Amino acid sequence: MIAVYPGSFDPVTAGHYDIIKRAASLYEKVVVLVAVNSSKTSLFTADERVEMIRTSCAAIDNVVVDTLSSGLLVDYARTNGARVIIKGLRAVSDFEYEFQMALLNQRLAPEVETVFLMASSEHSFLSSSIVKEIARLGGQVEGLVPDVLIPRLRAKFQSA
Amino acid sequence: MIAVYPGSFDPVTAGHYDIIKRAASLYEKVVVLVAVNSSKTSLFTADERVEMIRTSCAAIDNVVVDTLSSGLLVDYARTNGARVIIKGLRAVSDFEYEFQMALLNQRLAPEVETVFLMASSEHSFLSSSIVKEIARLGGQVEGLVPDVLIPRLRAKFQSA
Amino acid sequence: MIAVYPGSFDPVTAGHYDIIKRAASLYEKVVVLVAVNSSKTSLFTADERVEMIRTSCAAIDNVVVDTLSSGLLVDYARTNGARVIIKGLRAVSDFEYEFQMALLNQRLAPEVETVFLMASSEHSFLSSSIVKEIARLGGQVEGLVPDVLIPRLRAKFQSA
Amino acid sequence: MIAVYPGSFDPVTAGHYDIIKRAASLYEKVVVLVAVNSSKTSLFTADERVEMIRTSCAAIDNVVVDTLSSGLLVDYARTNGARVIIKGLRAVSDFEYEFQMALLNQRLAPEVETVFLMASSEHSFLSSSIVKEIARLGGQVEGLVPDVLIPRLRAKFQSA
Amino acid sequence: MIAVYPGSFDPVTAGHYDIIKRAASLYEKVVVLVAVNSSKTSLFTADERVEMIRTSCAAIDNVVVDTLSSGLLVDYARTNGARVIIKGLRAVSDFEYEFQMALLNQRLAPEVETVFLMASSEHSFLSSSIVKEIARLGGQVEGLVPDVLIPRLRAKFQSA
Amino acid sequence: MIAVYPGSFDPVTAGHYDIIKRAASLYEKVVVLVAVNSSKTSLFTADERVEMIRTSCAAIDNVVVDTLSSGLLVDYARTNGARVIIKGLRAVSDFEYEFQMALLNQRLAPEVETVFLMASSEHSFLSSSIVKEIARLGGQVEGLVPDVLIPRLRAKFQSA
Repeated sequence: MIAVYPGSFDPVTAGHYDIIKRAASLYEKVVVLVAVNSSKTSLFTADERVEMIRTSCAAIDNVVVDTLSSGLLVDYARTNGARVIIKGLRAVSDFEYEFQMALLNQRLAPEVETVFLMASSEHSFLSSSIVKEIARLGGQVEGLVPDVLIPRLRAKFQSA
Repeated sequence: MIAVYPGSFDPVTAGHYDIIKRAASLYEKVVVLVAVNSSKTSLFTADERVEMIRTSCAAIDNVVVDTLSSGLLVDYARTNGARVIIKGLRAVSDFEYEFQMALLNQRLAPEVETVFLMASSEHSFLSSSIVKEIARLGGQVEGLVPDVLIPRLRAKFQSA
Repeated sequence: MIAVYPGSFDPVTAGHYDIIKRAASLYEKVVVLVAVNSSKTSLFTADERVEMIRTSCAAIDNVVVDTLSSGLLVDYARTNGARVIIKGLRAVSDFEYEFQMALLNQRLAPEVETVFLMASSEHSFLSSSIVKEIARLGGQVEGLVPDVLIPRLRAKFQSA
Repeated sequence: MIAVYPGSFDPVTAGHYDIIKRAASLYEKVVVLVAVNSSKTSLFTADERVEMIRTSCAAIDNVVVDTLSSGLLVDYARTNGARVIIKGLRAVSDFEYEFQMALLNQRLAPEVETVFLMASSEHSFLSSSIVKEIARLGGQVEGLVPDVLIPRLRAKFQSA
Repeated sequence: MIAVYPGSFDPVTAGHYDIIKRAASLYEKVVVLVAVNSSKTSLFTADERVEMIRTSCAAIDNVVVDTLSSGLLVDYARTNGARVIIKGLRAVSDFEYEFQMALLNQRLAPEVETVFLMASSEHSFLSSSIVKEIARLGGQVEGLVPDVLIPRLRAKFQSA
Repeated sequence: MIAVYPGSFDPVTAGHYDIIKRAASLYEKVVVLVAVNSSKTSLFTADERVEMIRTSCAAIDNVVVDTLSSGLLVDYARTNGARVIIKGLRAVSDFEYEFQMALLNQRLAPEVETVFLMASSEHSFLSSSIVKEIARLGGQVEGLVPDVLIPRLRAKFQSA
């Protein structure tokens, strides 16, 4: 069974990575799908985000990375034979938003199932926004993103 | 008794319409009040939004549509003899925000009562933002807005 | 229009009284409906609870008090010509439970509307359980129940 | 992959059935696991609950029903080769409790993954308690439990 | 400044211990106050609970343990010169209940301040009930209670 | 013990003032720390915000006001010998965000403790945004900000 794990991943965090790893042990193939929304400003370009996920997940065989730049997520899932959309939940506010998205997607494509995994307790406070904020303020990001990305994140903020 | 149902209605959804219809059976007159906020970008102009609600509600006798472009909502209610402000609730996040607004309005105008109706379960995921997002991505909006508005919504996004 | 305000009212609190008074200004007649559940232990008997509400609301002309000892709330509403069920909301936990009840009642009797009023901010912490707990521990209940009930509440706990 | 769907199922509702059916399309085998807790009173015996689930799910090939009367859920999963625990979420209050259980189980057995499915919107208000309450009060339970169980539910409450 | 940390502590968990240790570094003296409620069944007697906390906190100089068997918590605080009530928060459901208690106590005793500490992320799922449930089912409680209490917890459940 | 109370304070509200006053009675010194974020638009300049807090708190001896224009909050706390970060909580949505921040800060600086105070019930609906919105719409802000700031707030909006 193929599962899609969509998100902005700007950048991928240690929490995202944990979900990817766990999803990869539950499904034959996991597509990490980078949403490219031209109307939202991102720190990293879509290409950079894809490459950072690829680098982080190099050791996980059944993970591929793709981008979604137009069309509905459920249509992507259908076209690519994915039965499952993966979402990570950290807190009640996530839950409400994702609940609404899941009900909407259930209506748009009943044969695609949204499956939720809980963030591990050590990642419950973690988000791409928090990582960027800490990096911007000069704080330590060790443990907040996959280790292999730390030099890259530092470079981005030094050049900024 | 006159009730005011305020909102952005950009555009009016099937969920808004359901609340309007139910409110219209509870009060002598329901004023659907389109908030015009010059500092917020809207997809449809205030005039378009008013006209779309009028078209949708043409069959409900005791519904009128108006705009609020300056002043407080409670002052509009007072001036227009409305004892009741109607709000629809879909989820906990709505609840918290609307709770704070209701307490504030109770303080500003104790004689105006905020009355909450729950969204029907088939509309619990629905919002103007979701409708616009789906239309933008080329998805089907049938059932998400009043049927009579579907051509209009399509036209907007094709011209965009 | 007739509205029903159901609850255990064991005992009626200052928060309940505030909702009753506000509801009475919105509807022609408000039926405060004491739920009598033989499987739940109550501090006050149904008769005592009814009488305490009657005493508290003596000055509000359009309030009557009744008991519901069998059958569904929506059937009571139908039989008594009530179009509206009133519920007070204090907090998110109230909201979730009441949301589920409202959706259920909408399914059981679509023509009966559940209408929510927010507790005033000074009553947001108040419940019958808290009143009983404070009275049991010998604390002051002034302001927590209608003034006229204070001697009665004290008598109950001294005799206990 | 084998998944376990644990619960009290006292009785199984239309919401439970919907989750079972969806889970059965995601996993090779779904074990519906009836928790038998001697310290909690149930309306139906464990045997009745098992049989009611079996009757409801007769048409779904890869569903089996079992009971858990002692030991931890994660130990049952391990012993029976189940990689996944299925939980349905209806609301924020479910979410918080299930989040805590999932974190606990992650700690007790990291190799067993808890996977959450959202209740369909038409079941968001549904629970075994609500079904029992409505049946007790003589209301209609059509649509609230699998059709095949309706006579059985009526019989239980007439004999009570 | 003296702080009171009230609770049932049936038994004290690793999460409680973490809060006690952190509180002890913030206040001159922390009184861990075991609530003795004759109408609630507890696994451990009040004396056992007091002694278990004393054993766990033996290394923290400024912690004392006491019991509250009658009267209001705020009255205990006043009588014992405590300006602060400490509460730990794990989740939204805690928050709502404790918020209501804090508002009530603010009303009863404005000079006593309720101060909230967040549970560490590794304890966010932990409660006395969960500890007891796991112990009852024969699971490992290492890390869930202070190490020194593990033999005691085992003994209780073997003798049960 | 020194406590830091960080925020945007654009402008300081009656709710902020209440928290400052209560914090000042719990700690030897309270630093009200105005976050200066060049990427966020504020109504009042950092200097205006500092001065408005100073004016409001003139009668509280142990309150000082400072600005944080770069670096992490926990680093400011460390450098200035503050053991405690104060946060006010009004609602569940506050709680979730602040919970995540507290866990993050606990990780970044375990020796700095985040301590939460609950907003008084009469301030539970109050925020700087609401104050600005009401002032913008010409409503009364009496009671929503410290009295001494009312002329200033009016002036700002008349000149705008």
